[in-house]
Amino acid sequence: MARRNKKIVHRNRAEQGSAAADDDIKITALKLPAQPLSTDMAAYFAKCQEKLGFVPNVLKAYAFDMAKLSAFVAMYNDLMLAPSGLSKLEREMIAVAVSAQNRCYYCLVAHGAGVRQLSGDPILGELMAMNFRAARLSERQRAMLDFAVKLTAEPWLIEEDDRARLRRAGFRDRDIWDIAAVAGFFNMSNRVASATDMRPNSVYHGQAR
Amino acid sequence: MARRNKKIVHRNRAEQGSAAADDDIKITALKLPAQPLSTDMAAYFAKCQEKLGFVPNVLKAYAFDMAKLSAFVAMYNDLMLAPSGLSKLEREMIAVAVSAQNRCYYCLVAHGAGVRQLSGDPILGELMAMNFRAARLSERQRAMLDFAVKLTAEPWLIEEDDRARLRRAGFRDRDIWDIAAVAGFFNMSNRVASATDMRPNSVYHGQAR
Amino acid sequence: MARRNKKIVHRNRAEQGSAAADDDIKITALKLPAQPLSTDMAAYFAKCQEKLGFVPNVLKAYAFDMAKLSAFVAMYNDLMLAPSGLSKLEREMIAVAVSAQNRCYYCLVAHGAGVRQLSGDPILGELMAMNFRAARLSERQRAMLDFAVKLTAEPWLIEEDDRARLRRAGFRDRDIWDIAAVAGFFNMSNRVASATDMRPNSVYHGQAR
Amino acid sequence: MARRNKKIVHRNRAEQGSAAADDDIKITALKLPAQPLSTDMAAYFAKCQEKLGFVPNVLKAYAFDMAKLSAFVAMYNDLMLAPSGLSKLEREMIAVAVSAQNRCYYCLVAHGAGVRQLSGDPILGELMAMNFRAARLSERQRAMLDFAVKLTAEPWLIEEDDRARLRRAGFRDRDIWDIAAVAGFFNMSNRVASATDMRPNSVYHGQAR
Amino acid sequence: MARRNKKIVHRNRAEQGSAAADDDIKITALKLPAQPLSTDMAAYFAKCQEKLGFVPNVLKAYAFDMAKLSAFVAMYNDLMLAPSGLSKLEREMIAVAVSAQNRCYYCLVAHGAGVRQLSGDPILGELMAMNFRAARLSERQRAMLDFAVKLTAEPWLIEEDDRARLRRAGFRDRDIWDIAAVAGFFNMSNRVASATDMRPNSVYHGQAR
Amino acid sequence: MARRNKKIVHRNRAEQGSAAADDDIKITALKLPAQPLSTDMAAYFAKCQEKLGFVPNVLKAYAFDMAKLSAFVAMYNDLMLAPSGLSKLEREMIAVAVSAQNRCYYCLVAHGAGVRQLSGDPILGELMAMNFRAARLSERQRAMLDFAVKLTAEPWLIEEDDRARLRRAGFRDRDIWDIAAVAGFFNMSNRVASATDMRPNSVYHGQAR
Repeated sequence: MARRNKKIVHRNRAEQGSAAADDDIKITALKLPAQPLSTDMAAYFAKCQEKLGFVPNVLKAYAFDMAKLSAFVAMYNDLMLAPSGLSKLEREMIAVAVSAQNRCYYCLVAHGAGVRQLSGDPILGELMAMNFRAARLSERQRAMLDFAVKLTAEPWLIEEDDRARLRRAGFRDRDIWDIAAVAGFFNMSNRVASATDMRPNSVYHGQAR
Repeated sequence: MARRNKKIVHRNRAEQGSAAADDDIKITALKLPAQPLSTDMAAYFAKCQEKLGFVPNVLKAYAFDMAKLSAFVAMYNDLMLAPSGLSKLEREMIAVAVSAQNRCYYCLVAHGAGVRQLSGDPILGELMAMNFRAARLSERQRAMLDFAVKLTAEPWLIEEDDRARLRRAGFRDRDIWDIAAVAGFFNMSNRVASATDMRPNSVYHGQAR
Repeated sequence: MARRNKKIVHRNRAEQGSAAADDDIKITALKLPAQPLSTDMAAYFAKCQEKLGFVPNVLKAYAFDMAKLSAFVAMYNDLMLAPSGLSKLEREMIAVAVSAQNRCYYCLVAHGAGVRQLSGDPILGELMAMNFRAARLSERQRAMLDFAVKLTAEPWLIEEDDRARLRRAGFRDRDIWDIAAVAGFFNMSNRVASATDMRPNSVYHGQAR
Repeated sequence: MARRNKKIVHRNRAEQGSAAADDDIKITALKLPAQPLSTDMAAYFAKCQEKLGFVPNVLKAYAFDMAKLSAFVAMYNDLMLAPSGLSKLEREMIAVAVSAQNRCYYCLVAHGAGVRQLSGDPILGELMAMNFRAARLSERQRAMLDFAVKLTAEPWLIEEDDRARLRRAGFRDRDIWDIAAVAGFFNMSNRVASATDMRPNSVYHGQAR
Repeated sequence: MARRNKKIVHRNRAEQGSAAADDDIKITALKLPAQPLSTDMAAYFAKCQEKLGFVPNVLKAYAFDMAKLSAFVAMYNDLMLAPSGLSKLEREMIAVAVSAQNRCYYCLVAHGAGVRQLSGDPILGELMAMNFRAARLSERQRAMLDFAVKLTAEPWLIEEDDRARLRRAGFRDRDIWDIAAVAGFFNMSNRVASATDMRPNSVYHGQAR
Repeated sequence: MARRNKKIVHRNRAEQGSAAADDDIKITALKLPAQPLSTDMAAYFAKCQEKLGFVPNVLKAYAFDMAKLSAFVAMYNDLMLAPSGLSKLEREMIAVAVSAQNRCYYCLVAHGAGVRQLSGDPILGELMAMNFRAARLSERQRAMLDFAVKLTAEPWLIEEDDRARLRRAGFRDRDIWDIAAVAGFFNMSNRVASATDMRPNSVYHGQAR
C-alpha cells in the first residue's frame, strides 16, 4: 500500500546498517576460543562445507570443547538424519514449530531454511515459523505438531490421551518417541542459543525462497 | 547438515501440495461476496495495482461492504503513511513485532515484507517476526518496540514509567500517541485476520529477500 | 457486615479526594492540544452533546488531529451503530467482555454504561465487566462472547472449530465478521486508552444504575 | 454515542430477562439445605439485618453447617473489622483488587459496594474492580495493592524485597501480616464463591452509587 | 550415575550450611512476638505436642494474636478433621496439589508429610507435590484434584460442567463444597505462608519416608 | 494435627495400592523392546549397578536403540560429571530447579536424590523441588538458578543483562555456557520423560533423606 522509492530504502539502510552484518563473525555473546578440531570433527566440518557450502554457526559455537561438540553432533545426526518413521521434513517441521513457541531466532532461521529446502515449498517454512495452526496440514502432521508444541509449552499436561491421539493418527510407539525426542532436542537447543545470543549464518536467510 | 537431493524435495512437495496454493483465491474462511467498489475505492484498488502490482488481500476481504472498507483504508493510510515522528519503517517494525506477539500469519507475511522493503535489509524483517529482542536496535527503536509489545501482551500494566522511558528515548507526546495507535491498530487487524483465517497474497513471500 | 457511620465516610473521602476529581479535565497523560474541529466533527460533537448530554472523552482525546478523529468516528459508528445481525446491545456486550479481558478502565466504564442503558438491566453491565461466564446468557450470546474473549486472549488459537460453533449458535458469516470486527476494534481502543491513561467522563459512572 | 430510545431498552430487557432475577433466591449451584441457626449465629444474622438491611448471601450459603458458618464469621470479622494498622477501607480495597485478579463475581459486587460506602467515593470502587493501577493512590496504598495482587497472581515470587517495599511505604510487620491475611482470605473466598457459583444479593448493585 | 564420595559431600555441606538450620527458630520473616496462649490454645498446643511430638510452626506464627490463632485453628480443624464425604487423606491430597500449583514451600513440606502418613505410601506424597497428573489415581480422586487445581489456577473458569464432572465421579453437593473449601483454605494459607516466608518444622522432612 | 492411627494408614494403603508399585517394571508408556547392549553400554550399565546399586530407568528407557542411548549417555556424562566451573552439586541444583519449573516427575525424583546426596543436606533437595526462591542461597547460586529458570520459562527474554548478572556473580563465559547447557539438557529430558510417562526407580525416594 505504501509507495516505496529507492531513496527511502537507501536512507533506511544507512540508518540501520544491515541487521545481521556481524552474524557470521561474532557467533555468540560468549568469548570461548575454538579448540583445534579433532580428526572426526574436522572431517565433519569438511563434509558440511562440501554439502552445504558452509559450517553452521551452532557447530562453531560448540567448537570450544571437542567433547561437547562431538556429543551434540552425535545426538543431532541421530535424531534428524537417521532412519525414522518421521520423514526428515517432518522432523524439521517439529524443529521450527517448537522454536516458534520458544521464539528462538537461531533455530527459526536455520531450520526454517531446512523446511523450505526439504519441502520445496518456501511458504511452508513461513507457516511453521509464524503459526503452524494456519497451515493446511494432514491430520497426521497436525497431531504431530500439536503434541510437540504442547510438550514444549506445558509438558506437565501431557498424558495418555495425548499419546492416544498420536496413535489414532497412525504413529507407532517408536514414532512417538521420535516426536518427543526431536521436540525435546530443540527445547534444549533453543535455550542454549537464547542463553548465548547465538547468531545464524546469514546465508540461511536467502535459501530456498 | 542434511544431504538434500532433488528426489526428496519432489516427493515432499507432492505429499504437501504447495502450502499456499489457494491463498490468492480463497482469502478468508467466510463467504462474503464482494460488493461493487465505490468510485473512491475503485481508484484506491487501481492505485494499489499500479504501485504494488497487486491488491492486498485484506482489502479484498473488506470489500463485501464499502463502509467498512473505506473506514479501514482511511485509518490504515493515516496511521501508516501520514506524516509522523515515526518513520514509515518504524511503523512497519511495530506492525511486525505486535503481529509476532499475536502470532498472526497474515500480518507477519504482509508487514514482514514491508520491513524488508522499507529497510532494504531482509534480515531485519526476519528479526521482527521471530524475536525483536535479538535485533541490534538503537535505544530509540528498542524502547518503541518494548512499549508496543508490552501494550500488546499486558496493556493493563502500562503506566507513567513506560511513557517516561519513551520520552527519555526522545519521543514526544505525539509520537507516543502514534506508537500506541499503530500497536493498537495491529492488535485489531491481527484479530480480524485470525478470526477469519485471512490469507496473505502469495507474492509477499518472495519480496525483498 | 460493617457498621458504617457518616464520620468514617467523611474522613475517608478527605483522605482520598474523589478518585476521579480530574477525569473530566485532564483526559489523557499526553499533552496534545485540540485542533479546531472540522465542520463534520463539530456537527458530530454537537450531536453527542444533544443526544448524550456530553462529548465522550475518547473523542476529545482524538481531537488533536482531525484525520485521526474522523477515521476513528467513521469506524466506530459503522461497527457499533450500523445495521448488523448483532443487536446494538450484543455489540456493547462484546465491547465490555473484551475490555474486561484487557482490564481497560476507560472502556469498562464507558461501555459498561452502554450495556446498562441498552439492556435496561444494570446488573448485566456488572456481569460483563466482572466475569461474563457468571451471566445467565442464551447459547447464542455465550458463544459470541466465548469467541470474542478467546480472540482477545489467544488469537492464534482461533480455528475453524471456533467458527463452526458460532454457526451452530445461529450466526451467519457476516455476523462472524461483525463479532471479530467489534472484538478487534476494542482490542485497539483498549490499547490506545491504556497507553495514554485515558479517563472516562465521570458522568458514565452513575448512568442507568 | 448511540441514540437510545425507550423502545430498544424495553425490547432488550424482554430478550434478556433481568440478569440477576434469581440471585436472591438461588444463592449457589449446590443444594445444601440450611440448618437451624445456632443462638450466636441467629444473633449475628439479626445484627446484619438491622445494620445492613439484609443478610449477605455468603452467610446464607454457609448456613448448611453451623461449625463452618461460625468459623467463617469469626475469621471474617477479625480480619475485616478488628483494630488494625490498615483502615477498614484499605482492607476492602485489598478485597476488591484481589477479587478482580481472580475475576470473582460475588466478591467484586459485595466488596465493591464496601469500597464505595466506606470511601464515600463510588468511582474508587469501580477503579478497584477494573484496574487498580488506574487509580490515583498514595504510595502507601499502591504498595499495599501491588503486594496483595502479586501475592494473588504469583505467590511463589514474593520475597524479602517485596516486604521491604511495604516497610519503606510505612507498614509495620503487623500490618504486613494483615495485608497478607486479607489478601489470603479473599483468595479463599473467591474460590469458594467461584466453585459454587455464589450469587451476590442484588441490593449491593445500587449501594452508594 | 555420579560417583559420590564422602569428601565431596562434606565440602558441599560446609559450603552450604544446612538449608534449614534456622527454620525451627526463625519461623517467619516478620517480628511478631508471641502473646500468652489463651486457655483453649494452650490446651490445643499441648495436644499437638502430645500427638505429633511438636507444635506446627504455622500455629506459632499465628500466636502473636489469640483471636487470629483461634479463628485459624477452628477453620482448619473443621475442614481437615471433621466428618466429611472426603477422607482425611483426600483432604491432604487436595492440600498438597493446591500448594504445588502455588509452589508454597511451607505447605508442601507439612502436608506432603500428611499425605505420606495418612496413606502409608511415601511416594504418593511426592507425586502430589511434583505433578499429581503422574499419579495412578482413581477416577474419583483425579476428578477431585483436577477441580481443586483448576479452581486454584483459573477460578473464573469454573462452571457447571466442572461440577457435573464431580457429580459423575460420585461426589454429592456437600462433597463439592468440601473440595472447594479445602482448596480455598490452602489458597489462603499458601499466600499467608509465602507472604511471610513461613518455614516448616524441620521434623516434617523425615516423616513417613 | 491429625490423629493418625495404624488402622487408617492400612485402609488407605489398601485403597490406593502403592503409588509406585509398578514403576520399576513398566518404565514408560511406550512399548519399545530393549536391544542387546553394545559392549560400551553393557560396561556402563555394569558400572551404574556397581556404583549406584541399580541402573537408572532413563537408561533402560533409551535402551531400545544403542545409537540413542550412547548419544544420551555421552552428553549427560559430559555435562554433569566432566570438569566445570560449576560444582557437581550446582549442576544437580540446576537440574532440579528446571525440572520443578516443568513439573517433571521423573527428573524431580532422580535429581532431587542427587541434590540430597551431593549436598548431604536432604532439605536442600526439597527446596530445589518446591521453590528454589525459598532456599537460603549464596548470591552466586541464586543468580545461577534465576538464569536457569528464566531460560526455562521464557527463553526469548534472556539478554545481555542476564549474562551480565552472572558475570557480576563471578561466573566466567565458560561457566555461563555450562549453566545454559545443563538447563537446556533438562529442558530436553523433562520433555522426553513427560512425553513418555517415564517412571523413576523407586529406590530414589528413600535416598539420603
